[in-house]
Amino acid sequence: MTSKSVLTNSKRLAAYKAVDNHLDSSTRIVGIGSGSTVVFVIERILQRGGLKEAENEKLKKLDVNNCVFIPTSFQSRQLIVDNGLNLGDVDQYPVIDITIDGADEVDDNLNAIKGGGACHLREKVVAEISKKFIIVADYTKESKVLGEKWTQGVPIEVIPFCYTLVLSSLKKLGCPSPNLRMAKAKAGPIITDNGNFVIDAHFGPLDGTKLFDNGNRNTPGDMMKQIKLLTGVVEVGLFIDMAEIVYIGCEDGINVKHIKKGE
Amino acid sequence: MTSKSVLTNSKRLAAYKAVDNHLDSSTRIVGIGSGSTVVFVIERILQRGGLKEAENEKLKKLDVNNCVFIPTSFQSRQLIVDNGLNLGDVDQYPVIDITIDGADEVDDNLNAIKGGGACHLREKVVAEISKKFIIVADYTKESKVLGEKWTQGVPIEVIPFCYTLVLSSLKKLGCPSPNLRMAKAKAGPIITDNGNFVIDAHFGPLDGTKLFDNGNRNTPGDMMKQIKLLTGVVEVGLFIDMAEIVYIGCEDGINVKHIKKGE
Repeated sequence: MTSKSVLTNSKRLAAYKAVDNHLDSSTRIVGIGSGSTVVFVIERILQRGGLKEAENEKLKKLDVNNCVFIPTSFQSRQLIVDNGLNLGDVDQYPVIDITIDGADEVDDNLNAIKGGGACHLREKVVAEISKKFIIVADYTKESKVLGEKWTQGVPIEVIPFCYTLVLSSLKKLGCPSPNLRMAKAKAGPIITDNGNFVIDAHFGPLDGTKLFDNGNRNTPGDMMKQIKLLTGVVEVGLFIDMAEIVYIGCEDGINVKHIKKGE
Repeated sequence: MTSKSVLTNSKRLAAYKAVDNHLDSSTRIVGIGSGSTVVFVIERILQRGGLKEAENEKLKKLDVNNCVFIPTSFQSRQLIVDNGLNLGDVDQYPVIDITIDGADEVDDNLNAIKGGGACHLREKVVAEISKKFIIVADYTKESKVLGEKWTQGVPIEVIPFCYTLVLSSLKKLGCPSPNLRMAKAKAGPIITDNGNFVIDAHFGPLDGTKLFDNGNRNTPGDMMKQIKLLTGVVEVGLFIDMAEIVYIGCEDGINVKHIKKGE
């Protein structure tokens, strides 16, 4: 396999495993994350619902017609709509059975950096109202300490009016060069699905070695709170204590390992 | 005087006193708050700049042509533009000499509830980057404990996608019936200048007698943090430790008293 197809396989296998292990005939309300790995979550759901051909014929059936799918972004909404699945909404379904989502980096404590696709606010809402929140990722996303791998920085959604203040506040918090994320297919900054900007703020590894005057440390949890409290910040792409289990497609492109909460 | 004209006088006098005491020939960048009292802030600035007639001829001159005015809302932007004052922007002027703003309720510690006009996010940004932040209000806004007088609730700006979750989170925080603020001149909820919703959440007096599991109390400061940390919340209309001095127009419609930080 080429390295690209190993990576793709790794994503696919993690997604398939999560769907196979956690979606069954009792599943009704399913949150659909965003990103490249989630495409394979939908693929597997379609296979198990008999809407798409699968190589493995022994698949356990999923009653997709009786399921409602809740998107976390325009991208995942389109995946749901284009594949003829039932589309739901967080206002109509304020409790979700299970959500499967990707991540940009995930550590051993199941904390994650998310927001590379700028969808982390809706992803966090959907994760928060889910009875079970599961992350699927390829091997390049796994790390010991958040901030080691995803050096682009923690994605922070901000109100456009406030971005200059937030850039300055982030510098005071110890981020040397926070970046307003610029768009590639339009002039100026990207606009989120909520009409806001995203700032990427790299603080280095969030290893807890730095102590702030207020008693906080640079742990993922403390940083999440400190950043969220800044005036102008809408949501921080740090998901703390939310995932119950993480599936990671291995570097061999064949195996999937999992990390479970409390293990 | 009728009670209505007493109230109006009280607002006017507080606004005039603040402008007279704190704006001088060295003032350059001025933040303009929002609301009914701020109209009189502009009125006094125009008088002192010689752009509007004043009864009192001994007014100290203000060099308004060399001042730039930073708005906190569409309303205050229009006040600046309509009166021919120089309009500025928080990105161009990230440090403001002085801001004068109103409040819906203000206590003895100079903490305030703001957001009756749904402008509290921009107001907070402008207050935060101001070297001096001054509140002007009439006597109906003064209280011992925040939440005693402004029983409509703490205004909370939320991302529209998240309002159901935030309503549910606020109930868990002890607000029995948070309210999505409905518009009066359009169908459905009001939309802020930032494109968001506002939820009004009345928690009763924020007197610190209630202890939360996480060690927080129902003080204005702790409540501000707890609410801001909720997923979907953009900004909370609690202004903690921001004002340096508050001018309150008295019930006699003649006198103005002030409360100063640390006094």
